[in-house]
Amino acid sequence: MVSDLSSQKKAAIVIEALPFIKQFYGKTMVIKYGGNAMLNDKLKHMVIQDITLMRYVGISPVVVHGGGPEITDFLKKVGKKSEFVSGLRVTDLETVEIAEMVLNGKINSEIVSLLNADGIKAVGVSGKDANLIRARKKLAVVHDHGTESEVDIGYVGEVERINEKLLTDLIQSGYVPVIAPIGVGADYESYNINADYVAAEIAGAMKAEKLLLLTDTEGVYRDFEDKSTFISSLTKDEALGMINDGTIAGGMIPKVEACLRALQLGARKVHIIDGRQPHSLLLEVFTAQGIGTQIKTR
Amino acid sequence: MVSDLSSQKKAAIVIEALPFIKQFYGKTMVIKYGGNAMLNDKLKHMVIQDITLMRYVGISPVVVHGGGPEITDFLKKVGKKSEFVSGLRVTDLETVEIAEMVLNGKINSEIVSLLNADGIKAVGVSGKDANLIRARKKLAVVHDHGTESEVDIGYVGEVERINEKLLTDLIQSGYVPVIAPIGVGADYESYNINADYVAAEIAGAMKAEKLLLLTDTEGVYRDFEDKSTFISSLTKDEALGMINDGTIAGGMIPKVEACLRALQLGARKVHIIDGRQPHSLLLEVFTAQGIGTQIKTR
Amino acid sequence: MVSDLSSQKKAAIVIEALPFIKQFYGKTMVIKYGGNAMLNDKLKHMVIQDITLMRYVGISPVVVHGGGPEITDFLKKVGKKSEFVSGLRVTDLETVEIAEMVLNGKINSEIVSLLNADGIKAVGVSGKDANLIRARKKLAVVHDHGTESEVDIGYVGEVERINEKLLTDLIQSGYVPVIAPIGVGADYESYNINADYVAAEIAGAMKAEKLLLLTDTEGVYRDFEDKSTFISSLTKDEALGMINDGTIAGGMIPKVEACLRALQLGARKVHIIDGRQPHSLLLEVFTAQGIGTQIKTR
Amino acid sequence: MVSDLSSQKKAAIVIEALPFIKQFYGKTMVIKYGGNAMLNDKLKHMVIQDITLMRYVGISPVVVHGGGPEITDFLKKVGKKSEFVSGLRVTDLETVEIAEMVLNGKINSEIVSLLNADGIKAVGVSGKDANLIRARKKLAVVHDHGTESEVDIGYVGEVERINEKLLTDLIQSGYVPVIAPIGVGADYESYNINADYVAAEIAGAMKAEKLLLLTDTEGVYRDFEDKSTFISSLTKDEALGMINDGTIAGGMIPKVEACLRALQLGARKVHIIDGRQPHSLLLEVFTAQGIGTQIKTR
Amino acid sequence: MVSDLSSQKKAAIVIEALPFIKQFYGKTMVIKYGGNAMLNDKLKHMVIQDITLMRYVGISPVVVHGGGPEITDFLKKVGKKSEFVSGLRVTDLETVEIAEMVLNGKINSEIVSLLNADGIKAVGVSGKDANLIRARKKLAVVHDHGTESEVDIGYVGEVERINEKLLTDLIQSGYVPVIAPIGVGADYESYNINADYVAAEIAGAMKAEKLLLLTDTEGVYRDFEDKSTFISSLTKDEALGMINDGTIAGGMIPKVEACLRALQLGARKVHIIDGRQPHSLLLEVFTAQGIGTQIKTR
Amino acid sequence: MVSDLSSQKKAAIVIEALPFIKQFYGKTMVIKYGGNAMLNDKLKHMVIQDITLMRYVGISPVVVHGGGPEITDFLKKVGKKSEFVSGLRVTDLETVEIAEMVLNGKINSEIVSLLNADGIKAVGVSGKDANLIRARKKLAVVHDHGTESEVDIGYVGEVERINEKLLTDLIQSGYVPVIAPIGVGADYESYNINADYVAAEIAGAMKAEKLLLLTDTEGVYRDFEDKSTFISSLTKDEALGMINDGTIAGGMIPKVEACLRALQLGARKVHIIDGRQPHSLLLEVFTAQGIGTQIKTR
Repeated sequence: MVSDLSSQKKAAIVIEALPFIKQFYGKTMVIKYGGNAMLNDKLKHMVIQDITLMRYVGISPVVVHGGGPEITDFLKKVGKKSEFVSGLRVTDLETVEIAEMVLNGKINSEIVSLLNADGIKAVGVSGKDANLIRARKKLAVVHDHGTESEVDIGYVGEVERINEKLLTDLIQSGYVPVIAPIGVGADYESYNINADYVAAEIAGAMKAEKLLLLTDTEGVYRDFEDKSTFISSLTKDEALGMINDGTIAGGMIPKVEACLRALQLGARKVHIIDGRQPHSLLLEVFTAQGIGTQIKTR
Repeated sequence: MVSDLSSQKKAAIVIEALPFIKQFYGKTMVIKYGGNAMLNDKLKHMVIQDITLMRYVGISPVVVHGGGPEITDFLKKVGKKSEFVSGLRVTDLETVEIAEMVLNGKINSEIVSLLNADGIKAVGVSGKDANLIRARKKLAVVHDHGTESEVDIGYVGEVERINEKLLTDLIQSGYVPVIAPIGVGADYESYNINADYVAAEIAGAMKAEKLLLLTDTEGVYRDFEDKSTFISSLTKDEALGMINDGTIAGGMIPKVEACLRALQLGARKVHIIDGRQPHSLLLEVFTAQGIGTQIKTR
Repeated sequence: MVSDLSSQKKAAIVIEALPFIKQFYGKTMVIKYGGNAMLNDKLKHMVIQDITLMRYVGISPVVVHGGGPEITDFLKKVGKKSEFVSGLRVTDLETVEIAEMVLNGKINSEIVSLLNADGIKAVGVSGKDANLIRARKKLAVVHDHGTESEVDIGYVGEVERINEKLLTDLIQSGYVPVIAPIGVGADYESYNINADYVAAEIAGAMKAEKLLLLTDTEGVYRDFEDKSTFISSLTKDEALGMINDGTIAGGMIPKVEACLRALQLGARKVHIIDGRQPHSLLLEVFTAQGIGTQIKTR
Repeated sequence: MVSDLSSQKKAAIVIEALPFIKQFYGKTMVIKYGGNAMLNDKLKHMVIQDITLMRYVGISPVVVHGGGPEITDFLKKVGKKSEFVSGLRVTDLETVEIAEMVLNGKINSEIVSLLNADGIKAVGVSGKDANLIRARKKLAVVHDHGTESEVDIGYVGEVERINEKLLTDLIQSGYVPVIAPIGVGADYESYNINADYVAAEIAGAMKAEKLLLLTDTEGVYRDFEDKSTFISSLTKDEALGMINDGTIAGGMIPKVEACLRALQLGARKVHIIDGRQPHSLLLEVFTAQGIGTQIKTR
Repeated sequence: MVSDLSSQKKAAIVIEALPFIKQFYGKTMVIKYGGNAMLNDKLKHMVIQDITLMRYVGISPVVVHGGGPEITDFLKKVGKKSEFVSGLRVTDLETVEIAEMVLNGKINSEIVSLLNADGIKAVGVSGKDANLIRARKKLAVVHDHGTESEVDIGYVGEVERINEKLLTDLIQSGYVPVIAPIGVGADYESYNINADYVAAEIAGAMKAEKLLLLTDTEGVYRDFEDKSTFISSLTKDEALGMINDGTIAGGMIPKVEACLRALQLGARKVHIIDGRQPHSLLLEVFTAQGIGTQIKTR
Repeated sequence: MVSDLSSQKKAAIVIEALPFIKQFYGKTMVIKYGGNAMLNDKLKHMVIQDITLMRYVGISPVVVHGGGPEITDFLKKVGKKSEFVSGLRVTDLETVEIAEMVLNGKINSEIVSLLNADGIKAVGVSGKDANLIRARKKLAVVHDHGTESEVDIGYVGEVERINEKLLTDLIQSGYVPVIAPIGVGADYESYNINADYVAAEIAGAMKAEKLLLLTDTEGVYRDFEDKSTFISSLTKDEALGMINDGTIAGGMIPKVEACLRALQLGARKVHIIDGRQPHSLLLEVFTAQGIGTQIKTR
């Protein structure tokens, strides 16, 4: 509650959002939802409110969620150890089935209900519905003594094609699609796919105005140790350069690569934002300064 | 600018408007625009912003404006004195022509341009367009030595029928109609009509969610001298009672009568609000406390 | 009344119009309405009938009106003298406001009512509605001792862009648009624009089948003194040649230039016709011989 | 050609039709086409023109044609004698087949081509298409020595039900339906039906504005011998009375009965007009005096 | 009845048709209906069932029928001898009128009724309806002592242009069009056209999935005397080669030429099938082996 | 494969299905899919084919699946014992979460993929999507020493309201909805609901032509021990009577009650059929004898 402010001031603040509301009216925004913003109940509630607000002011939000930690937890519960190769989970048939159950039958379901409870009409979608996410096997790249080899780690996939018609049909009928990052292979087998990449491919296929990645970092730094080197805006080429020269490193690399992929496919802008901040979506979309790091074509 | 507040607080304030945005999504609201809110440039700008915001969050605003003072000014300019009978201007042919020119060719035009400049698509409409406002002559009631008589004061009219199809056609094509209170008679003569009544009839014909009357008062008081007796909510019957027992008197009577007429025809709620306050429309529509006096069916 | 004719003969005459009705079914025609046809009550009534007939036999008429003489009269009334530079009225802020009031609030309104009274659904439109006519300042060209200079004469404009969507929306909903030649500038200031040019630009933007200019002349003569030299049909190139060699001169030059502009933008044919003749529109559109001078691409 | 008249007079005559064009815009009119108007080439051409004009001024014409004389001729040609019982042709299987061939394959075809040649899109329709005219056997009533008996005369039918959807589909796609009076029985056998009755049932089913019967008489007389007793307008009740008291007799009885049936089913007005007069349809529909005898509900 | 089979086996057989139902869903197929399949009542009933089934499983069938033998019979009946030049009937005005009556008023009518009786909505169409089949005169080619000359044999036509809009309008409204092979000339005269060619032109104009010619042969043989040389599939080029080298000869030439014409205009495949076999359409469309000879582009 | 039959016989068999295809064209059928038909791979494949065929011949299938055994298996896997009260599983929060994961994330997903692989567009739907299945807690009824009491067994639900709009939206866009029997409570908690009841409520809400319950029995017997007492058709009243007199007993009672509920809500017919038979859906829908026991209103 912000009750200590006069009504007049509140009105003035609401009016400050007007230019952004005008700018984004009728546009599609893809939100990658994950990390702390999904674990913390208070943050979760705020993300839901932000998505609801976006929908009511004329934006078409499309939500893609992750769920790595919950999958790990559940695998433990059934006594299955998670093994990783180059950061990717080795995924046998039983593992991908459990991943699908957790993503589609638990996390997705919960987000859908929270949005419905907040007054919009959300519909959960798996990549298998109407073949939304066509996938193929992704091999892990292993570096060993200077040689690089590819290893088959099972049902880990990458996006081959997005059949976005189901999404546009749902949006046109007034629903907000919430997507679990499960893809379907040529033989109708399931693949677990990194949610950042799924969000990027969907943002690209839908020519989204924005791809918003909710992460557990503030964004990109020139020098991660020195908070004063925070970068609020990058071009595609600058981002590529910073990957090549090692400025962007570690877990930030795949996130930035997903961003670049979205831009290449036709999304207009991507944002790496801090999901740990209250109302981070709203701050990015409806304020002049925004938050996090944006990457744009040029 | 309200730059002294943290982004976080601003976000929280915007989120406070969300329940009202949800509630009024897809509804029609008729705004009677007049008085100081039309004379003061700063207030004018805020009214325009409020209407724009309403449009962007899914409300269909319909604007009806007045213009008495400007008509008086212009009549002076052309050397014509204004004569009044029981508060109504005696309106010969030349006077109604000038009223129409001022209302339709000046005030209406200006509001349309301000809204267009703010990013929505406004279209000026006269009551003569597609016979939107069918009118008949209104006689002035004169009380003299206890007797009551009716006097013909010329082209002063009252609403006979609203042909709202033009409005729904414009709204469906995405326009915001701005209406000058000129009616058209059976022989296609023009009538000058009180804008409050026009707004009320249109709100009724369109089964509006709200009729919002921007006035130069704070609303209705039980005792006008004692500001502590302000009434924020009335039922139709209570309002009628207060007219009959004289609590509501003077210039407030026709305003309240217009409100009751709108309710009777099918509007859901009416609000007498203080146009002298910044963002008064926004405060009424998007905050819990609202402002001014509301009248509802029961 | 033409009651001395047998019904049979009348039927035969009506049938003579059939080939033209077939030819123009579903086409748009822009009518520049002005001059004597607007001043004389009997002629006015006939123009209204002709437009109504056009509408009923499947043509989409769009009316653009002028109003120079009425503006001059009204300026006199408020004690303002009209000054002209190179035939253009010097137009300060007060003047353009009065021009807008006269055009939009009086003349437009009257034409709309006459059409509505005759059984069609007319809607008055200003160039400011939904930014229909985007305008920029037009400088007067002054020739003095062989030198040519440009003079700022205030709010006199020329068309920069026609946003014809409002017109097509109105036509599709079944309305006949009646347009006042007021344009809106980059800063939302008003401009008074020559109605012939407005009609030409609109005819061009709408790819009209015909632009019909109602004038106070019979059309173009090779030798104005010799009525036998009347020209009923010209190509674009012939018309240009006749301007260059001085055959077309004086007030006829801007009219012919407007015609050529309409053709260049995509109108199919333009007609300079004599508005002083009864039913001149009908004679042009529905008879084999037509009236006036037509100009076509080639 | 009516070239001896000035253009001005012609224009005035065309304008005289305007009130009727307005009145009938968007209405359906069913025309029973038969008799001399179908045999005489000049008259035929005029009927076609009248129907074309009706279509172009916004009326939806539906044509039903007869063809008794042509059937008789063709039967003769194939050496089959026509036998009649109480005025109805005894119709064995071979006869109804020939009737269908003549009506559907010859007369219908010709009318369709004439209309298409005149610039509208006509489509020939048999009562069997999409089961448009569901029929049942009609027995001939024979009066003999004061007793009345019913005789089976074969494939002579009466209308059981009109499935007008095919007609409304064709009209909505812009076609003019031309209907042969063949009905289809419960076992999909063909029936020859009196065209007046078919037209009446179709006019009723479509709630037509007018049913126009082109006949070889001027209309109804109070005393057929005395031309001064011509009746231009009758109510339903008056017409019934005149059948009962014998004023209406002979071949006029079934025509008037068809008219009454159309009114009963929902047509607004019916007209018995003289097809031998040039442009009789046009005279009835677009002039104040009309021609022939009209019958209306009251 | 095939009652000796278990339900299980029947179900399995129905399921065998599923891949073909999927493949042809939403496609248009043009059926040339003629020969024995039209003369034999049992076969006729099966063709009707096959067309009905096609319609119900999502195919849009368009039927074109012939009628040569019936025309010959009827000409005899009216005492008119049929004369032929190079296999084409000499067709004077009386002959073409009778052809039209037989085709349009008898054969077409009967097929329409059979289809309607079987539960679909068929509508009979002549090439004159909405100018569906624009035709021109076709001259007979006469070979005499090594010289080739062209002879005018009257109202025998060839297709100049198909105006398929009437067909797509009918199909979209849910009707099955049944077409009589009558064309309309430049002066609206009728032409009798070979039904194979009409079917081919319509299949081409509609970019049909299949043109199915029901004939009285099994298809194409390499050596007509040796049944073992039956050809089930040909390319366009192979078919042309076989005409040139004389393998395809006699009455098969025009059929194959019609097939090639359809392919050239845009039909995907054509089939010459044996209408004397029960359910030949169904066998071709819904079984893997098909029947008859198919010709495809390559 | 049924290759020993002649093509002719096969065609005749397919044609036998035609009357049923006609009858059910455009109708909605709800299929409760469960039991052996879901466990046996060969049967599963046949059910998928049957549903695909239904879709292609114009029926709108809606699939509701169960999954009790799989839930039990999975609970075992995570070391949770299943406890039952009066045949209902005691369902704590963890249990309902696992039920949802198994139903929504595993079984539903698999059926969707099988249908997509067979060429239709299936979309998985949970009762939480767009609040499709509003549920409330269902108490277990316990009978103990002649007294009846209700016991709270956790998140076991019953249907409160079906919001079928999501289903009609999906069907209209061409999708086949596959529904997991999870309901959403007033506080957005999940409930596991018996799939038979969910199917019945959905069949009722959609006014389905048929509700088809795939079971592991042949249907209803008058005397379960005597196979000759099989009942192929029952009225609603007869079924009620047989429950009351004990003829219908045990596990058949809830199935029959679900059937009666569907009829009461507006489904036209319900069928209890033997999912262990190959192509049982096809046999019921497309053959004259059908299979299983049908219950109809009267």
